[in-house]
Amino acid sequence: MKKPNHFFYFISILFMSVNLNVQAQELTLEELLPGGKNYFDFIPNLPLQSRWFGDQVAVSNKDTLYLVNPKSPSKKTLLITNEELRKLLSNERADVNRITFLKTGGTEAASILLPEKNSTRRVLFDIRNKQILKQINQERTWGNLDFFPDNQRIAFTIENNLYLSDENNGLPVEVAKDPDKNSINGQSVHRNEFGIKKGTFWSANGNYLAFYRMDESMVGDYPLVDISAREAELKSIKYPMAGMASHEVTVGVYNLSSGRTVFLKTGDPKNRYFTNLSWSPDEKYLYIAELNRNQDTCTVNCYDIQTGAKERTLFTETNEKYVEPQNPMFFLKRNPELFIWQSKRDGYNQLYLYRTDGELIRKLTSARADVLQILGFDEKEQFIFITSNELSPIETQVYKINIETGERIQLTFEPGVHSAVLSPSGKYLLDNHSSQQTILNQQIIRTENKQSIAFQKASDPYSSYRLPEVSLGSLKAADGASDLYYRLVKPLDFDSTQKYPVIIYVYGGPHSQMVKNNWMAGMRGWDIYMAQKGYVVFTMDNRGTSNRGLAFENVIHRNLGVHETADQMCGVEFLKSLPYVDVTRIGVHGWSYGGFMATNMILRHPDVFKVAVSGGPVIDWKYYEVMYGERYMDTPQENKQGYENVSLLNLAGNLKGHLLLIHGDEDPTVVWQNSLSFLKACIKARTYPDYFIYPGHGHNMSGPDRVHLYEKITRYFDDYLK
Amino acid sequence: MKKPNHFFYFISILFMSVNLNVQAQELTLEELLPGGKNYFDFIPNLPLQSRWFGDQVAVSNKDTLYLVNPKSPSKKTLLITNEELRKLLSNERADVNRITFLKTGGTEAASILLPEKNSTRRVLFDIRNKQILKQINQERTWGNLDFFPDNQRIAFTIENNLYLSDENNGLPVEVAKDPDKNSINGQSVHRNEFGIKKGTFWSANGNYLAFYRMDESMVGDYPLVDISAREAELKSIKYPMAGMASHEVTVGVYNLSSGRTVFLKTGDPKNRYFTNLSWSPDEKYLYIAELNRNQDTCTVNCYDIQTGAKERTLFTETNEKYVEPQNPMFFLKRNPELFIWQSKRDGYNQLYLYRTDGELIRKLTSARADVLQILGFDEKEQFIFITSNELSPIETQVYKINIETGERIQLTFEPGVHSAVLSPSGKYLLDNHSSQQTILNQQIIRTENKQSIAFQKASDPYSSYRLPEVSLGSLKAADGASDLYYRLVKPLDFDSTQKYPVIIYVYGGPHSQMVKNNWMAGMRGWDIYMAQKGYVVFTMDNRGTSNRGLAFENVIHRNLGVHETADQMCGVEFLKSLPYVDVTRIGVHGWSYGGFMATNMILRHPDVFKVAVSGGPVIDWKYYEVMYGERYMDTPQENKQGYENVSLLNLAGNLKGHLLLIHGDEDPTVVWQNSLSFLKACIKARTYPDYFIYPGHGHNMSGPDRVHLYEKITRYFDDYLK
Repeated sequence: MKKPNHFFYFISILFMSVNLNVQAQELTLEELLPGGKNYFDFIPNLPLQSRWFGDQVAVSNKDTLYLVNPKSPSKKTLLITNEELRKLLSNERADVNRITFLKTGGTEAASILLPEKNSTRRVLFDIRNKQILKQINQERTWGNLDFFPDNQRIAFTIENNLYLSDENNGLPVEVAKDPDKNSINGQSVHRNEFGIKKGTFWSANGNYLAFYRMDESMVGDYPLVDISAREAELKSIKYPMAGMASHEVTVGVYNLSSGRTVFLKTGDPKNRYFTNLSWSPDEKYLYIAELNRNQDTCTVNCYDIQTGAKERTLFTETNEKYVEPQNPMFFLKRNPELFIWQSKRDGYNQLYLYRTDGELIRKLTSARADVLQILGFDEKEQFIFITSNELSPIETQVYKINIETGERIQLTFEPGVHSAVLSPSGKYLLDNHSSQQTILNQQIIRTENKQSIAFQKASDPYSSYRLPEVSLGSLKAADGASDLYYRLVKPLDFDSTQKYPVIIYVYGGPHSQMVKNNWMAGMRGWDIYMAQKGYVVFTMDNRGTSNRGLAFENVIHRNLGVHETADQMCGVEFLKSLPYVDVTRIGVHGWSYGGFMATNMILRHPDVFKVAVSGGPVIDWKYYEVMYGERYMDTPQENKQGYENVSLLNLAGNLKGHLLLIHGDEDPTVVWQNSLSFLKACIKARTYPDYFIYPGHGHNMSGPDRVHLYEKITRYFDDYLK
Repeated sequence: MKKPNHFFYFISILFMSVNLNVQAQELTLEELLPGGKNYFDFIPNLPLQSRWFGDQVAVSNKDTLYLVNPKSPSKKTLLITNEELRKLLSNERADVNRITFLKTGGTEAASILLPEKNSTRRVLFDIRNKQILKQINQERTWGNLDFFPDNQRIAFTIENNLYLSDENNGLPVEVAKDPDKNSINGQSVHRNEFGIKKGTFWSANGNYLAFYRMDESMVGDYPLVDISAREAELKSIKYPMAGMASHEVTVGVYNLSSGRTVFLKTGDPKNRYFTNLSWSPDEKYLYIAELNRNQDTCTVNCYDIQTGAKERTLFTETNEKYVEPQNPMFFLKRNPELFIWQSKRDGYNQLYLYRTDGELIRKLTSARADVLQILGFDEKEQFIFITSNELSPIETQVYKINIETGERIQLTFEPGVHSAVLSPSGKYLLDNHSSQQTILNQQIIRTENKQSIAFQKASDPYSSYRLPEVSLGSLKAADGASDLYYRLVKPLDFDSTQKYPVIIYVYGGPHSQMVKNNWMAGMRGWDIYMAQKGYVVFTMDNRGTSNRGLAFENVIHRNLGVHETADQMCGVEFLKSLPYVDVTRIGVHGWSYGGFMATNMILRHPDVFKVAVSGGPVIDWKYYEVMYGERYMDTPQENKQGYENVSLLNLAGNLKGHLLLIHGDEDPTVVWQNSLSFLKACIKARTYPDYFIYPGHGHNMSGPDRVHLYEKITRYFDDYLK
């Protein structure tokens, strides 16, 4: 998220607030929610925006960019002012806060994007000598932009075709153009699963561009309707549903000097997933993690990009439930035959050092916890920097691992969550630390000796407001063994002699972690709002959620919603044990997988939950897409009983309390058919849910409408639970 | 509506009810609503089903068909038993109750439809001699069936094409087949407006078949989505919206002997309405009432069917608001140069005797009230029989009018509503009379001398239940002059010292009359249900509704909803004057135009209405279709200000109370865009309506889901108004 110049505005708001003595005032949804009019006044901002410029930190405030050398952090060296920048770029809207840095042709250059009339101007410039190095006008029609700094060219798409900006900034070069609109070039494939986020992949030196081509001709059209047109218009999408025909993907490699494309000979079956594309540092080979449609076998293959032929298979990973490769190879520069591979094959996400002939050199990590992220290497590539939650599932610390010895050295220590950015040389970390009590504390850490240099702290935007009390804790899952972590928010002005209604806010699906030891324990804006209104708000990560290892996660396989709901009921038992919780007034709210969960909870435990609000819910997994859906549920053909067990259509008759379902009428993720089919099932079963639609919205309601959404949800709880 | 053998079942239910002493029991929605499990037990059935067979009445009960001669009504002559019928037709499901009568080749024949495996067998038989005259197998794929008794052939459609069943019941004959699916042959056109109900028109002796051809290629596709498919499927319809391109209609005449079709040369502009097709008795000419798109000029033209050329224009009717021809010519057999035309040109629907050269012979009626229906002639065509509400707008009586002198003779007298069927000779009327106290009283009336012969009475299906008190009354409209008629239902066990919440059930649109002096004053099942729950239920016909003359109706022109709402507020003032009405608890419910009205009322008078439930509502007339919409609103281009004035999108911010909108997701009449756009407007305006959808339903919810619908509506009122 871009953070515009809100800092000074924010300061003045706080100042004003104090003057007006607003201690008695409560926060509004406009202040608490993204999309709210005053939301940006309450973002925990740092005084200065910072990023690495070599081994110095470039910091910008309102109109000036400085350099800070970690060796003498109190001294600032002026780099450029807005006035100078605007003159240099001949653009009155240029802003030092938007400058980033990158290496082009071996030198560190500044980069900025300037909105022009019908395009965006990308400018690379020498910030010290105030010289423009390169300018490219990015047209509005360009999508999926992938800029490669070294050759200063941009891969981009228009409709289903792929182009390259010309070397001389003249006309674009066609890379892949297809008259068949069902053939999509250069875009993300497989619905962004398996860690896929884009469709173009530059080789190390920019001589080649690998790209996905996706054939969707065999995939069913899912009809979405745009009601904002004068007369409603069809806006179909391709949506491959579980068990149905899916798209087919191939990988092309475009040679910039010859202008020719070689397609890799990935062969049959075509119905597979091609993920984690990794270029060899010498630009000769492309590695692909190839997953079968069953998602139980992942084969990492090497292809010769000149011929497209498969050179060899490096290794194969299998799991009777599923394998989910999420990260590309991480090559060592000092020895391009070596790379690091991430895998959960031993139960947790760990690092493995491999040789490109497929030989495993050694396992680099062995904690009974997940490696969360690779931050990079030191200059000599003696160490790799990672984050891990091995000290506590709700904390994240930074470590360096000796690649030769496997020795692990902890670099951050304050309890809580650390996210860090390594300097290009690996000498320093810019560490962002938050914890329940710490909003955001930025330090510079010398990686050699763990020396920590205080840098800057964000101030609490809510300091002039009373906030509800929030606490973290854990309890045992339904398996009697796993620890589940929760966040508990007490009503504002809590009185232990009172009985309060409680709302469980739930997500509960894979790839999520709601509860961490970060600022205010991750309490959400709406949690605060409801606490102000006198509700207890409770959130807990059940089994199936992430960063807890494979067994904790994949217990949900083929029976989504069952173990998750059982775990949430352990949370309910805990809540019932609290003297101040009114057990007759328990509600639940969730969105997406959380909508599926909320609906599960009120239907499977109709005597426990009085109210549920379920947004964009999956109702029957047969209506969900192939990649995510079949990973967890297999196909409806293979797992008929599982699909029946967990279909909420079959539980529609259980509804006793008040259930409000909400859906965006253009939801391309959890298609509308889910909640509409549920209504139909309820009507047949003579049960009475409530319903609401956000026309024109997709899977989530963003912008100002999000405030309406949460006011709507709040009123529903106020009507039936308060 | 077909009335199956429910009578005896009904009797036994009543009997059981009395035995069980159900006096304290209340009626359920299953009993009160069409679609409910026990609804048919409470239909006011006559003991015997009756229809004319010559000048005798054929009556059937469970398994026997008798004849009753009005001259000796107590005597019954056996015609046929079920046993005989089943033997004759070789079909065990044949039932005397389903026999109808028609003339074929000059003789009165019995006709019956028998469901077979893949078809319906149509059988004509001589009921006295027990001989089958003709059988035709009507395939399931046949639509829009139009059987002509004299030549015993059926015009029917398959998809967009028109066929004739073969004379020898062999293969069908193609009449009009079009490879372009946008060209529709033999079906109703102009969206059933202007009295159009079908697309084929047999000439007097069955030698020709006139039919509509409609070209819809220029009309926008409106996307409907069927969510019951495995993956949601598109089911687009052609929906011409106000001010947008509309379909073009031509009229073809198929000559059965030559097998050739002549299209009438109706010329330009093509964008017109061709209505009320009338054959000359000699089969030489076809008359068409042709209305311009502005709907302010109607020209009645005569075409030569051999050449398709226009012979002449008979006359033209104009009105600065709109002209709405609804009824075809009614030719006199004794002089085929004479016909009767119905028109509101003098302010009320009246009869005009014309000659086919266009000369008006005389105006036959001159009451300041509408002629409601033409029932037929006497044998000599000296008299024409009509129904009219001239005695009271809420009553209907039968009259005969002397065509030569204009003398009018009243034939029915009991106050209330009479609907009558003339015997083929015109000697008798089978008169069905109902009034607030009379459920249904069937008499035979001798038209010569008004002599009335008692025939049979229906018994009250609710006799063992307590029913709420219902009354009729009138009050002054917002114009201070017009009388508006209302029905007022008091809560069951009414206590004049109590204060009750009130629900206005409203329709309020053209072509409707909700309040008449018929059984229980037309009290609806849901009215009874709500009265049982302690609500006052009120319904009133505002200006703009029908059977009250042109000025009463067309005051709404170009500003729909404004006068209607003003009139309904006169009803509210009346309600407020009642000591037992709680003025703080007034709600309103309506569907379709009534949904538009209910939404109007709560938005234009947010301090009056606490709750509204609005089903399938028009929200902005620009989303409504061309024919109906432009008649009342002109086009959005011509009446920009009117459209803006009455668009509920512009009033979305007024919402204060509780408004529940309900829509069928496949509504082809008031398209879903209406209520979805309203939600969008409310979200923008930060108001909070509620919403519900009936998936798979069109403009109305029928079948068992209707019970769910009214339980849903009831709960909403119970939540917020009770």
